[in-house]
Amino acid sequence: MSNNPSFVLRGVEDVVFEERPIPEISDDEVLVEVKKTGICGSDVHYLQHGRIGDFIVKAPMVLGHESSGVVSKVGKKIHHVKPGDRVAMEPGATCRVCEDCKKGRYELCPNIVFAATPPYDGTLARYYRIPGDLTYKLPDNLSLEDGAMAEPLAVGIHSVANIGKLRANQKVIVFGAGPVGLLCMAVAKALGASRVIAVDIIPSRLEFAKSYAATDVYLPPKPLEGETKLQYSARNAKTLMEQLDIEDRGHKAIDLVVDASGAEVSIQTGILVARQGGSYVQVGMGAPEIQIPVTTLLVKELNFSGSLRYGPGDYEFGIALVAQGKIDLKPLITHRFTFEQAKEAFETNRAGKSEDGKPVIKAIISGPDVSIDDN
Amino acid sequence: MSNNPSFVLRGVEDVVFEERPIPEISDDEVLVEVKKTGICGSDVHYLQHGRIGDFIVKAPMVLGHESSGVVSKVGKKIHHVKPGDRVAMEPGATCRVCEDCKKGRYELCPNIVFAATPPYDGTLARYYRIPGDLTYKLPDNLSLEDGAMAEPLAVGIHSVANIGKLRANQKVIVFGAGPVGLLCMAVAKALGASRVIAVDIIPSRLEFAKSYAATDVYLPPKPLEGETKLQYSARNAKTLMEQLDIEDRGHKAIDLVVDASGAEVSIQTGILVARQGGSYVQVGMGAPEIQIPVTTLLVKELNFSGSLRYGPGDYEFGIALVAQGKIDLKPLITHRFTFEQAKEAFETNRAGKSEDGKPVIKAIISGPDVSIDDN
Amino acid sequence: MSNNPSFVLRGVEDVVFEERPIPEISDDEVLVEVKKTGICGSDVHYLQHGRIGDFIVKAPMVLGHESSGVVSKVGKKIHHVKPGDRVAMEPGATCRVCEDCKKGRYELCPNIVFAATPPYDGTLARYYRIPGDLTYKLPDNLSLEDGAMAEPLAVGIHSVANIGKLRANQKVIVFGAGPVGLLCMAVAKALGASRVIAVDIIPSRLEFAKSYAATDVYLPPKPLEGETKLQYSARNAKTLMEQLDIEDRGHKAIDLVVDASGAEVSIQTGILVARQGGSYVQVGMGAPEIQIPVTTLLVKELNFSGSLRYGPGDYEFGIALVAQGKIDLKPLITHRFTFEQAKEAFETNRAGKSEDGKPVIKAIISGPDVSIDDN
Amino acid sequence: MSNNPSFVLRGVEDVVFEERPIPEISDDEVLVEVKKTGICGSDVHYLQHGRIGDFIVKAPMVLGHESSGVVSKVGKKIHHVKPGDRVAMEPGATCRVCEDCKKGRYELCPNIVFAATPPYDGTLARYYRIPGDLTYKLPDNLSLEDGAMAEPLAVGIHSVANIGKLRANQKVIVFGAGPVGLLCMAVAKALGASRVIAVDIIPSRLEFAKSYAATDVYLPPKPLEGETKLQYSARNAKTLMEQLDIEDRGHKAIDLVVDASGAEVSIQTGILVARQGGSYVQVGMGAPEIQIPVTTLLVKELNFSGSLRYGPGDYEFGIALVAQGKIDLKPLITHRFTFEQAKEAFETNRAGKSEDGKPVIKAIISGPDVSIDDN
Ligand SMILES: NC(=O)c1ccc[n+]([C@@H]2O[C@H](COP(=O)([O-])OP(=O)(O)OC[C@H]3O[C@@H](n4cnc5c(N)ncnc54)[C@H](O)[C@@H]3O)[C@@H](O)[C@H]2O)c1
Ligand SMILES: NC(=O)c1ccc[n+]([C@@H]2O[C@H](COP(=O)([O-])OP(=O)(O)OC[C@H]3O[C@@H](n4cnc5c(N)ncnc54)[C@H](O)[C@@H]3O)[C@@H](O)[C@H]2O)c1
Ligand SMILES: NC(=O)c1ccc[n+]([C@@H]2O[C@H](COP(=O)([O-])OP(=O)(O)OC[C@H]3O[C@@H](n4cnc5c(N)ncnc54)[C@H](O)[C@@H]3O)[C@@H](O)[C@H]2O)c1
Ligand SMILES: NC(=O)c1ccc[n+]([C@@H]2O[C@H](COP(=O)([O-])OP(=O)(O)OC[C@H]3O[C@@H](n4cnc5c(N)ncnc54)[C@H](O)[C@@H]3O)[C@@H](O)[C@H]2O)c1
Ligand SMILES: [Zn+2]
Ligand SMILES: [Zn+2]
Ligand SMILES: [Zn+2]
Ligand SMILES: [Zn+2]
Repeated sequence: MSNNPSFVLRGVEDVVFEERPIPEISDDEVLVEVKKTGICGSDVHYLQHGRIGDFIVKAPMVLGHESSGVVSKVGKKIHHVKPGDRVAMEPGATCRVCEDCKKGRYELCPNIVFAATPPYDGTLARYYRIPGDLTYKLPDNLSLEDGAMAEPLAVGIHSVANIGKLRANQKVIVFGAGPVGLLCMAVAKALGASRVIAVDIIPSRLEFAKSYAATDVYLPPKPLEGETKLQYSARNAKTLMEQLDIEDRGHKAIDLVVDASGAEVSIQTGILVARQGGSYVQVGMGAPEIQIPVTTLLVKELNFSGSLRYGPGDYEFGIALVAQGKIDLKPLITHRFTFEQAKEAFETNRAGKSEDGKPVIKAIISGPDVSIDDN
Repeated sequence: MSNNPSFVLRGVEDVVFEERPIPEISDDEVLVEVKKTGICGSDVHYLQHGRIGDFIVKAPMVLGHESSGVVSKVGKKIHHVKPGDRVAMEPGATCRVCEDCKKGRYELCPNIVFAATPPYDGTLARYYRIPGDLTYKLPDNLSLEDGAMAEPLAVGIHSVANIGKLRANQKVIVFGAGPVGLLCMAVAKALGASRVIAVDIIPSRLEFAKSYAATDVYLPPKPLEGETKLQYSARNAKTLMEQLDIEDRGHKAIDLVVDASGAEVSIQTGILVARQGGSYVQVGMGAPEIQIPVTTLLVKELNFSGSLRYGPGDYEFGIALVAQGKIDLKPLITHRFTFEQAKEAFETNRAGKSEDGKPVIKAIISGPDVSIDDN
Repeated sequence: MSNNPSFVLRGVEDVVFEERPIPEISDDEVLVEVKKTGICGSDVHYLQHGRIGDFIVKAPMVLGHESSGVVSKVGKKIHHVKPGDRVAMEPGATCRVCEDCKKGRYELCPNIVFAATPPYDGTLARYYRIPGDLTYKLPDNLSLEDGAMAEPLAVGIHSVANIGKLRANQKVIVFGAGPVGLLCMAVAKALGASRVIAVDIIPSRLEFAKSYAATDVYLPPKPLEGETKLQYSARNAKTLMEQLDIEDRGHKAIDLVVDASGAEVSIQTGILVARQGGSYVQVGMGAPEIQIPVTTLLVKELNFSGSLRYGPGDYEFGIALVAQGKIDLKPLITHRFTFEQAKEAFETNRAGKSEDGKPVIKAIISGPDVSIDDN
Repeated sequence: MSNNPSFVLRGVEDVVFEERPIPEISDDEVLVEVKKTGICGSDVHYLQHGRIGDFIVKAPMVLGHESSGVVSKVGKKIHHVKPGDRVAMEPGATCRVCEDCKKGRYELCPNIVFAATPPYDGTLARYYRIPGDLTYKLPDNLSLEDGAMAEPLAVGIHSVANIGKLRANQKVIVFGAGPVGLLCMAVAKALGASRVIAVDIIPSRLEFAKSYAATDVYLPPKPLEGETKLQYSARNAKTLMEQLDIEDRGHKAIDLVVDASGAEVSIQTGILVARQGGSYVQVGMGAPEIQIPVTTLLVKELNFSGSLRYGPGDYEFGIALVAQGKIDLKPLITHRFTFEQAKEAFETNRAGKSEDGKPVIKAIISGPDVSIDDN
């Protein structure tokens, strides 16, 4: 047994286990013994490409940012948790003093230190040092795996509750039924949406969505030859509205569109199916530039917003909804790996399914010396 | 002198003066003797193309919708105006009973009867019948021309004050310095914007903007050969930010972008120059589909909204700002025509300047038997 | 059998059955055959006192305003309902043209024609004439009694959802567990409140609240001799917070206080128990003037709002929540009377219980020739 | 010349000059050489009573919290100011990690360290240690006295702009024309209020208000013998509305009421004169408990909020409005004292006027060795 074994990305497709020193903490920090870490698309992306946009891995970096653990040590100023407490860990430490931090939108902080975003180390290690207020004590009925899942859940909370301002009895459509889209649906349902429509191009994902949080599912048609994306989207929107009995006003209309696919045609279709005066939230990140039917957006007076990670209160809100039984995170965890199997975990995630053919939704890597059954 | 001479569009490029019966009014209506009417781009568009999108001129239609006049008769239920009162006339009569009308967003009413939008007649006639509550008594210090200008002003109010929610000390950029863009600037200034940047590709329009309501102006460079629109816009945004000392956070950042040009490159540039967490309002209608840098919009958590015409309170608000001397509408009126010269007025508007070379901002047609000097 | 039998208040304690002419409807109206009407405190108040504040019964007036029925006739412009449809009836017809109506707050319309508010007749008759858009087709799983209950439900929706802006996971306390308070609790629960505390001075009402929509109940202590109301309220607030483990910040704090009792001590206590930065909504109407701890309100930056009846969308929202099974209205109906028994119904309501000792929550009077079992 | 002379309150009516050690600063702090300090009612209150509510002076405490100065030293992490810069100093250091700090309402932070609120020392000393982000570089056209006035100005900004959400063209009434009320008026005017009514019981204060930022003034009548406060307020409201041509709806109605007097009758009158659907902001702190006409508040659906100090962005906003010439702080400074004259300054402030009879609005005490002319 080592001191602080860490799973380190050194360059494209180059990961190793390394011993790292155990971090010292300051008065307002907490040292967490990491127990469970979910793999996110961005981790895989850094492994494959060594960068995401302008964030380039120039020095070895520990991977992982969707984590929970057990408090090992607390700084003198920390009183809300104590050693031994099970906690969810919010991976973005913000500066507290910029205008965005102070006015309550810390997700926009330019000085954010985000786990596993270069040059900052992530959580796939035995120990992680974290500002105390970013550790959230897990209610008794939440597992450590639930704690790790609090991170993508917070993305769903931020987009659906805070940016999208969903209210009970609204109708929602979510494009993309990956982990993020599924959690957007779960949040919508938990907040009382009366209709939650899942759209994906992979039938098995739709099946899962239906069994999980969607009231309806929709499988888009294949594009026709020679059809432009906008032509396809117009056709897609028309078909969708007919099949699902959607109108652009009244109680059959869609109040909120969430895109968690990043696909250009989803965005176009989303704008076309939204109600007059409705809202649209962009969560998915795909092609950086895409075409939109802007006149449609204008005459409907749509409100189209971007949603970035999560902000103040999102973690607590998500954890509370799980504790109240309004969101069940367990079905999303399809694969579990030990710390030693971290590479295999990444391979499986990248492949989209394990060797037995089971599709991956969320794969969890346990901390060093933690059993996959101990959750 | 006739009873109710009207300027009627019969088909593409086919306008005539016709005698029409004087309308009867009901208890909650007002009959207005129209005195001044501004020509709008949409009037010209119907003349040239016989349609705008799905709105097709199938039967003869009176043109004009930016009007003021003098009350001629009032229905029994009307008490806020009386015969002889000078009034601005809001040209969209909404249904009052749909959900949008009832919840305070009547601009989205599907049953709207809008002057000079087929199949409904416009205001270029001696008499116009209008729901009483859509007539606004002009304060003494407003002219009848000001009353006609209340219509495009309300477009500026709606987009900048209501949709854009501009607050004092904010920084605003407006793309397009036609009448609508200029009025957006005037509203921004009247609401206390500390910086109002005008962007247009016509230098004379920028000069006017500078003399009118802009604190700064910016002339975009010409596109380079082989450059895509997005490449051009990225270059344009960079140049603009450098030239005008704009940053994407802090007090040098742009809080609100308004596009009143409809140009694809303006929309792209606007998204690129907006601040983190800023707002963008689309007023201009150009190509129905355009490319946007959606990832930039997402990571900035921009709020991108369409703005359609005007809603409850916009007319009153605009008129009040003019009465208080915070907005001066007079400089915008560059050309004046008698009712008999209506065709010439349209020609001049379409040409963009009169024979003497003077560029048109707003051309006003007087009512039948009204002198152009009598304003 | 008569044509249009009506239950008419002629003066204090003076009610009679009268034959009234069947109303004619205009193009945008509907004639409803009234089937079920709930008795409201205000009906009883008019019967006992002949007035509420400045509203004085000067001429005979039909009582009743919480009603549902079956459409008998529709005006030419009405398409969303047809004869035979079962409908809930919103009893306040607003003017549509005042600024409040137009900006989406028609509850403030100065020209409102409200059923059974002098000088306007109410709904306790066979037929009632109503603007078409104020009839709401009942979903199949709602009874006519549910339709009558849509009125007090809309009061709960307005105060909790619209004015109080309750969001999921918030903690709510409701003072007063009469029909209005109970419906506020039901709405809070339906919107996802994680704690709904009922306060009443009648133990049986608390028991009912607990069985219905409250997660916790609190019975205030008796006032001590010589104690001022404010002293009592301070003691009450302290006891309440201790007994129910309430703090003034964090997840144990109360986000929203609703008073549906009208009692001065409830209002005082409510202000004292609300969280820092919390909200308070006043629904109950009791003493017109009361003392409040204003410095406490200030240093907490409380937001204290009045809530009057209901506004746009409230009826639809309430009906949808019932249809979705999130609110059950049936348990609230404790007593049923035939049309002929209307006087007895009022007596029972006033007494607070029937002869068998059963406490009244809501008593329903059926329409003429409608069986009490036919709901 | 001493090192760090400080003006210290030891107990009721017991102040002395003391030498205090020069504070050490940490990496994110700034050491400011204090140049100008305004006297606030709370400073005087501590001097006279040794306490304000639960805040009790138990150990010697430096007075003063409305200050500006020149940066003497900066911590390593501070880049927005450097030694020699003139700065305004925000006197409340908040914890950054509580839920209120993080969600953008740091005025509610329970851990706030506020200058000259026991047990924390104030700014009436040569040196003051302050978190770097709470120092605001003064624009060139602002004096150091303006910088000291930024503190009460921020109170006006918070109440009128943030809590009261004033928009251009609204009508405002402010009760109390002391420094805080006057600054509320100045903010209202700067934000474009079309009517700003000042109410005070001291005619000279009204005169000043009229010359400063009010469009209208109102002097309440004297109470009649035997009249209750509520009777007086009803009469007062009636007179006020008649004299100033105020209605309770439409463009003659008052959109926003601000109380900066703390007087019970002002609060009552304010509720009575507010428009239907209007807003009321409580800034003044007087009797902790007062009577309000709650039914009036309810039927108007008033929004009544407390306003505490200032929050994120308020300082910057105020300073920007002064820099833009929209607010002039100079007329408010009526008296100037050297550091040695601090006791005399407090005496004068308490007396309300200097020996020459000149009424005090704001008295400024210069820092040690700073001339009163050097501003
Ligand atoms: N905004 C943020 O802060 C944030 C945070 C995390 C993830 N994300 C983004 O959210 C998106 C979803 O993340 P995920 O982990 O669920 O990814 P994922 O790849 O598992 O899910 C995307 C889903 O979209 C579906 N899809 C692809 N094209 C589609 C189309 N044309 N129509 C409908 N569905 C289509 C895919 O089949 C897939 O199921 C990604 O783009 C990711 O980058 C954003
Ligand atoms: N949303 C609404 O309710 C509403 C109402 C009225 C008008 N409009 C639209 O608003 C727009 C403006 O109306 P207007 O009457 O002022 O029209 P206009 O044609 O007079 O003005 C448009 C201006 O945009 C400028 N422009 C063109 N390309 C540009 C570019 N690449 N960068 C910067 N500026 C550019 C033009 O030079 C011109 O000055 C039109 O598109 C019109 O259809 C919308
Ligand atoms: N704002 C509106 O639009 C609106 C609409 C309808 C009713 N109301 C008002 O709402 C209130 C409730 O209506 P209701 O029909 O439920 O009346 P109700 O009389 O049946 O209920 C009031 C309840 O408050 C309780 N109560 C009295 N004093 C109390 C105290 N000190 N602490 C706690 N509880 C106390 C009573 O025991 C009773 O159960 C009434 O005041 C009514 O006038 C307002
Ligand atoms: N909420 C906050 O964060 C905050 C901050 C600073 C000050 N305050 C409070 O604001 C209030 C004003 O502060 P100030 O420094 O201007 O005090 P001040 O004493 O100089 O001004 C109060 C004014 O109210 C007037 N007044 C008294 N009774 C009145 C009445 N019946 N009608 C009309 N006017 C009346 C007085 O004549 C005086 O001019 C004080 O109560 C103070 O405690 C609050
Ligand atoms: Zn920050
Ligand atoms: Zn409508
Ligand atoms: Zn009305
Ligand atoms: Zn704090």
